[in-house]
Amino acid sequence: MKQIEQYGIFELIIKGREPEGSHVEVDLQAVFVNGDREMTIKGFYNGNGEYRIRFMPQHVGVWTYEVRSTCVDHDAGEFECVPASGMNHGPVITEGMGFRYADGSRYYPFGTTCYAWTHQPRELVEQTKRTLAASPFNKIRMCVFPKSMVYNHNDPEHYPFARKSDGTWDVHQPDFAFWEYFEAQIGALMEMGIEADLILFHPYDRWGFSSMSREDDLVYLDYCVRRLSVYRNVWWSLANEFDLMADKDDDDWEAFGSFIHQADPYHHLTSVHNCLPLYDFKKPWVTHCSIQSSFMHMIRNWRDMYQKPVIIDECGYEGTIEESWGNLSAFELVHRFWESVANGAYCTHGETYYREDEILWWAKGGELYGESVERIRFLKEIVYGIQEDLQPYGKRTMSDPNNPQMQTAMDNDPFIKRLAKGMMEMPANDRELMMYRLSPSKVQHKEECYLYYLGRSRPHECTMELPDTETFEIDVIDIWEMTRETVIRQASGKTKVPLPAKEGMAIIATRKG
Amino acid sequence: MKQIEQYGIFELIIKGREPEGSHVEVDLQAVFVNGDREMTIKGFYNGNGEYRIRFMPQHVGVWTYEVRSTCVDHDAGEFECVPASGMNHGPVITEGMGFRYADGSRYYPFGTTCYAWTHQPRELVEQTKRTLAASPFNKIRMCVFPKSMVYNHNDPEHYPFARKSDGTWDVHQPDFAFWEYFEAQIGALMEMGIEADLILFHPYDRWGFSSMSREDDLVYLDYCVRRLSVYRNVWWSLANEFDLMADKDDDDWEAFGSFIHQADPYHHLTSVHNCLPLYDFKKPWVTHCSIQSSFMHMIRNWRDMYQKPVIIDECGYEGTIEESWGNLSAFELVHRFWESVANGAYCTHGETYYREDEILWWAKGGELYGESVERIRFLKEIVYGIQEDLQPYGKRTMSDPNNPQMQTAMDNDPFIKRLAKGMMEMPANDRELMMYRLSPSKVQHKEECYLYYLGRSRPHECTMELPDTETFEIDVIDIWEMTRETVIRQASGKTKVPLPAKEGMAIIATRKG
Repeated sequence: MKQIEQYGIFELIIKGREPEGSHVEVDLQAVFVNGDREMTIKGFYNGNGEYRIRFMPQHVGVWTYEVRSTCVDHDAGEFECVPASGMNHGPVITEGMGFRYADGSRYYPFGTTCYAWTHQPRELVEQTKRTLAASPFNKIRMCVFPKSMVYNHNDPEHYPFARKSDGTWDVHQPDFAFWEYFEAQIGALMEMGIEADLILFHPYDRWGFSSMSREDDLVYLDYCVRRLSVYRNVWWSLANEFDLMADKDDDDWEAFGSFIHQADPYHHLTSVHNCLPLYDFKKPWVTHCSIQSSFMHMIRNWRDMYQKPVIIDECGYEGTIEESWGNLSAFELVHRFWESVANGAYCTHGETYYREDEILWWAKGGELYGESVERIRFLKEIVYGIQEDLQPYGKRTMSDPNNPQMQTAMDNDPFIKRLAKGMMEMPANDRELMMYRLSPSKVQHKEECYLYYLGRSRPHECTMELPDTETFEIDVIDIWEMTRETVIRQASGKTKVPLPAKEGMAIIATRKG
Repeated sequence: MKQIEQYGIFELIIKGREPEGSHVEVDLQAVFVNGDREMTIKGFYNGNGEYRIRFMPQHVGVWTYEVRSTCVDHDAGEFECVPASGMNHGPVITEGMGFRYADGSRYYPFGTTCYAWTHQPRELVEQTKRTLAASPFNKIRMCVFPKSMVYNHNDPEHYPFARKSDGTWDVHQPDFAFWEYFEAQIGALMEMGIEADLILFHPYDRWGFSSMSREDDLVYLDYCVRRLSVYRNVWWSLANEFDLMADKDDDDWEAFGSFIHQADPYHHLTSVHNCLPLYDFKKPWVTHCSIQSSFMHMIRNWRDMYQKPVIIDECGYEGTIEESWGNLSAFELVHRFWESVANGAYCTHGETYYREDEILWWAKGGELYGESVERIRFLKEIVYGIQEDLQPYGKRTMSDPNNPQMQTAMDNDPFIKRLAKGMMEMPANDRELMMYRLSPSKVQHKEECYLYYLGRSRPHECTMELPDTETFEIDVIDIWEMTRETVIRQASGKTKVPLPAKEGMAIIATRKG
């Protein structure tokens, strides 16, 4: 019996008649059964009279299947799903305010951004994959459609659809060469353990993909789901900068999100990325917050507001281009990664060093030239070295007069009362920014591990508040020099930690007894 | 005839009877007359039966005077006011959104902060003055009352008043030794060309000066004005952190401000410094905005709101103490100075390097150890090298849909329209922060000089928009390395300026033809 790994790809290739109408909305599905489990999976047309049905089994054991279609002859069979092996841990799912692989192992996103890397010449695409393989990144933001923008003037070899005689796109006629190449890259990412955060729509367009009708958009999404959802590493990002898409409105995004939610049998992670106003992440089909913002001070607020994992998917890029979003120093980007981690969120990398040949990593891939990547790897190793994702703690007391500790302080000290009064009178977002600047970002895992990130503050010492009843080892981390040094071996309760008085320092206290 | 410099100090010392009641509210004044000009000036008691009347003549020529008092015998006379010389340019006044000396010469505040320097041992006070003399600073924030706070545990040699038998202060009995010493330091600053921004009340107190009755407060202010207003370099800062003074309310500040406004014959510059909410700088007796904030992105907003000069009198201090307000890197403080200048405001220095001996410049004076001072001097030289104070320009177009240029852009481009819509939907303060991060800060002096400050952005080039009709020389400035290099000798119109792609760069275009 054929064996397929759990979370792997089972594929049926069936010859049939060329579809008479739409090459997308073909009548082709199969029912897969394993004990009480039954899943109905739609197939897709791949040209030349070839149909395919792809299925990702999520449980080990024997699966039987039966094809139901008016396009192809009846077919049925079975295969054995065997346990996953190697780097295959299944799709990523959310768990509380974080993520996890379906098999329960840890997944902590450290993403990068290459919007249009699959639309570049093949040699460049191969180079991008080599760079990714050597990088610490385990997620990539990438577009299905090609990108037209500054530094992005070239045309791709293939487009997703055939053109009609009037020059518009015929979404019912996929260009199979495009899709085969595109999905091969998703597969390659999968083999590297990199999640493909697929951007389904975006505004940077000179070909007309951003201004199709909603009906056509849904046909396109139908084909994406039928063809690509089998890849365990797929995430659906409905848009890059949904709010800048002049021809889409709230109803479109709701329609797309709802459609994918019902059509995707695996319920891959789904979100909508913004430019300015955030998308309404409270929608039931949104699995996590995918945010563009440099407002790291708002992260805790967003966690509280949406109660879903927060990825700062775009906080600016390390680079030197004139455009303001693409000229962060490497230190600033690394700093933003640390601020994300130290506020209970996740961050995404991007690189935009100016180049005459216009091959900037952020859009086209190629090579990485920056200094942040190794520091992100260093952070990743630290984070994976901790038992669980860290959660923010220590409500910023001064901004929370309902905190009983704060109430006592206010009652006992009229000075504190005045300070709290002033805080409460500030606009909420200003208060968040002020508190963020005035205190280290703090996260913890139970009473096991405490992390303070001091950001651009550079005190000669920092007082940690640790439980009195446990003993901790305290390490001081230099986020830029990538050093980690144990400075106190046995600490309990309030502990003064000596620091080298420079920017970019973090402190980790780990329980030892 | 006795000669007194314009803006100098004419002083009458008159022996009389010891006052029977208050040693402050003494019946002593003199009328000074020069042609049509007549000024009535109150005198003060200085102990041991000695009364003094001090007068700062602001116009050259012969002044006659006549003393009117029930405490001393009748006295009258005259003196000649001769033109000011050397560094004497008179008191600082406001002019539009900036400052100027009374004689019309330029004054651009570059202040520092030593709250309690006059309350330290005499040797330390002398050292502080030597440090100030060698520094670029032309203004100092300093308290009349001593300071009690972290790193400030010592008592001064003298207090401003005698104590009553119950331990409270008798404001009617000034301690003349205190005032003689204190005013000698103001005089020493005056000789150095340093404005004394006198903080009249502050919350960091263990002696009771912050919780006297309003009646007593006004007696204290009466003595300050009678005794100190003659010093041309005096500014009145009603408070450091008015909002944290638990025993003062809005009516107190209004009473103090109104009192000083009517009592001070010279109308010295007057403001009220905040911790969190800003004081209402629209009050008629407030001459300028004295602001504590690290929100450099709000400067232009504050200028627009109050239409008075803005001094960021506290934006954090260069140092290494654990307290978050006192551990900025030198670069960050210099950066904030540049952001102030490049947004049409003025900034104040402070230094808080941790020291075992607790002699931190910010409170006690002594020596300066930091790296920002020389960079502030560099900036000061650049600013004084420009003909006039620079004014912000180039409305951040995207955040102003009423701007006709923006309206056209929106009409022509649905993408721009979406971007503007998103901007307008943001909370106003968030929009300010975003626009601040997304574009260089820009100031200009007419069509003579344009300054861009790029802050923490580090593009490889920056496009300046210069008038087409004039020719400019363009210099690139490294604010940290303190270099200034001419990179383009003849520029007009839209000009790309090559940059070294690092943080802390500024560009100045100066008209040459």
